[in-house]
Amino acid sequence: MLVIQKFGGTSVATPDMIHKSAAHVADAYRQGHQVVVVVSAMAGMTDQLDRYVYDVSLAPDLREYDVVVSSGEQVTCGLMALALKSMGLPASSWLSWQVPVRASADFSQSRVKEIDPVRLQEALSRGMIPVVAGFQGVTDTQDLTTFGRGGSDITAVALAVSLKADRCDLYKDVPGVLTADPRIVSHARLIPFMTGQEMLELASLGAKVLQPRAAELALSQGVSLRLLSTFEPGDGTHILLQENAVEQPLVRSLVCQKYQAQLSLEYQDDFSLLLKELERAHVSLDMMSFLNGRMSFSLPQDKADQTKSLIQHIQGKDKDVTIQRDLAKISLVGVGLRGHPRILRALFDVLSEKKITLEGSSLSETRMSILVAEEYAELVVRLLHKVYDLGGDQSHDQELRSA
Amino acid sequence: MLVIQKFGGTSVATPDMIHKSAAHVADAYRQGHQVVVVVSAMAGMTDQLDRYVYDVSLAPDLREYDVVVSSGEQVTCGLMALALKSMGLPASSWLSWQVPVRASADFSQSRVKEIDPVRLQEALSRGMIPVVAGFQGVTDTQDLTTFGRGGSDITAVALAVSLKADRCDLYKDVPGVLTADPRIVSHARLIPFMTGQEMLELASLGAKVLQPRAAELALSQGVSLRLLSTFEPGDGTHILLQENAVEQPLVRSLVCQKYQAQLSLEYQDDFSLLLKELERAHVSLDMMSFLNGRMSFSLPQDKADQTKSLIQHIQGKDKDVTIQRDLAKISLVGVGLRGHPRILRALFDVLSEKKITLEGSSLSETRMSILVAEEYAELVVRLLHKVYDLGGDQSHDQELRSA
Repeated sequence: MLVIQKFGGTSVATPDMIHKSAAHVADAYRQGHQVVVVVSAMAGMTDQLDRYVYDVSLAPDLREYDVVVSSGEQVTCGLMALALKSMGLPASSWLSWQVPVRASADFSQSRVKEIDPVRLQEALSRGMIPVVAGFQGVTDTQDLTTFGRGGSDITAVALAVSLKADRCDLYKDVPGVLTADPRIVSHARLIPFMTGQEMLELASLGAKVLQPRAAELALSQGVSLRLLSTFEPGDGTHILLQENAVEQPLVRSLVCQKYQAQLSLEYQDDFSLLLKELERAHVSLDMMSFLNGRMSFSLPQDKADQTKSLIQHIQGKDKDVTIQRDLAKISLVGVGLRGHPRILRALFDVLSEKKITLEGSSLSETRMSILVAEEYAELVVRLLHKVYDLGGDQSHDQELRSA
Repeated sequence: MLVIQKFGGTSVATPDMIHKSAAHVADAYRQGHQVVVVVSAMAGMTDQLDRYVYDVSLAPDLREYDVVVSSGEQVTCGLMALALKSMGLPASSWLSWQVPVRASADFSQSRVKEIDPVRLQEALSRGMIPVVAGFQGVTDTQDLTTFGRGGSDITAVALAVSLKADRCDLYKDVPGVLTADPRIVSHARLIPFMTGQEMLELASLGAKVLQPRAAELALSQGVSLRLLSTFEPGDGTHILLQENAVEQPLVRSLVCQKYQAQLSLEYQDDFSLLLKELERAHVSLDMMSFLNGRMSFSLPQDKADQTKSLIQHIQGKDKDVTIQRDLAKISLVGVGLRGHPRILRALFDVLSEKKITLEGSSLSETRMSILVAEEYAELVVRLLHKVYDLGGDQSHDQELRSA
């Protein structure tokens, strides 16, 4: 079996943790599997490099930005190879230009075009364990690029596609995908299986457990994923390629995203021009809705002022654009949500009982999101977790046992 | 004019210092020169990366060691390009594999084989300022290598050769080459001109102002060098290609190297085998001498025990090898030293007056080195600086004026 094992920043934060991660590689290798390792930068290093860049230049050229920040993965790539070799395993490091990982020239948000499998396959056939630097690619003109935050997930999934790997294991500092954030809901439960579509929804909604573009690539290319902990035993969450015929709970998991704002403006006919300009400025619109001649959408709060200025720049200074701040987006992910009115009714029951205003909502087949004032966010997550019975009998039993 | 400007670790230690260094590039560029910049890692970063490596692996694979430590130059390479761009200059970063800087596969002590000038020349012809990561090269098999400590000097000189540059300016945290270490001799004087041969001797003797292999390359390839300060105004030290006809003082500069030891062993016929093994173990023998059937040589103190073991491994455990520790090597560099008995006599006068034992000595045309107990090292340097009149009239005047 050929397995991709990817270790995130907290899994390689110190030399000691690198050795703990390397032990998972050793296990798989000694069980007779072929293994390709992908590493992120040590936790905190990318932030440090990012600070250096902005200390030197307020509006950095993105090609040079990528040269600086991609060095973090280079460091862990070499260190992981050293840790594996010190365990007697035949490992060697591979930087993106050595593989090569071919990528588009959109610096700092580049996309993988193709990973050439030939040199890695040749190394695997000699029994080697290639350790690949995540997050980075090389363009057709031999420039370094990066894939944006969380980009090592993309490298891992893209390698799984290119090498036709049997599975891609993403090692994290959490045991897998949970029914809710355990800091909000203490008895949040690990979800052992979920569909690729559900995973994509969760990732897009800001669940940090997987980079959204990696989730998209895995879904579209049929990569078998597993998310699991580097530090705790456990089988993690398996992301299934095909929806399981077995009946499942309707709501699978809750995600809460704070620091959101909602912009509202008068609807005009030149809306598609506005959309184009917003896309160019990398503003992603979420929860868009139209009502009484106005349109509204949600976005991260720190982008609100800049986006308002941009809209007024396009549509005129006198344009009335309002910003509603300090909101939280709470999302439910599951299967067939739209077809089940009881889901929606349970939600409204919770909100009306606590007299919490619903500031916005959007609903699709697999996802429902609502906007509420940030101060109520944790309360709402806890109540919904209970209403939708996400804790389940199993976790109640565990609670009783540990009491 | 085409100028190579190289900035050492202390010249790029912080974002602010990177901007100070970039100002020198801007000056030269705005005077109409073509400039290629070479950068070291930020002061301290290579040490940090080195610690990471040894925390992960006690006996690191050197290929992976190079992958980790070469990332330091990648960071400053991007940051310097950003600093120049923020000043409105057309700069871009070049990593060794992008140039490419072709190097031998002797990881961690690789040698430059060839620098392909084509892509850099093309960039220069478009008015660009290439910023090249020092210290690193790429092998024929596309592996990263490094040139050893101070290796960015080598990159700079090799680029000067390959691009046929008119001059190579090495920016340091000192004003140039001095007659002695100013921490030992407070009125040590800047040497405005010296020959390439003298520079090579000084560098080989441990004067940290220039990497010895860079000095060797500059001398053999006729590269016009200048060593100067990033932070203070001044013209620095020019290294002349051809010896100047103007009469010069005989002794030019003093270098003191502490933490030395002297090994002594019985001379045997298999000496050339021993030399070969020592070379393989990267032990460089200095101040070799033969007397009464024994041979002795000096070496850095931290290599003494290991070297003794190696000799006994080759010649037999019972072999009598003695180590004399806590020595300092003091060297005089100048022209025609061997032909001037007064140089030697003045030295012996100083030592005998202070009752300091001469533990070893070696003498060539351009260099004289002596070994004395470490505790006397600074005293001897001060006395010799005076005896050989290195302070000169000028500095005496300055002393009087400032008194």
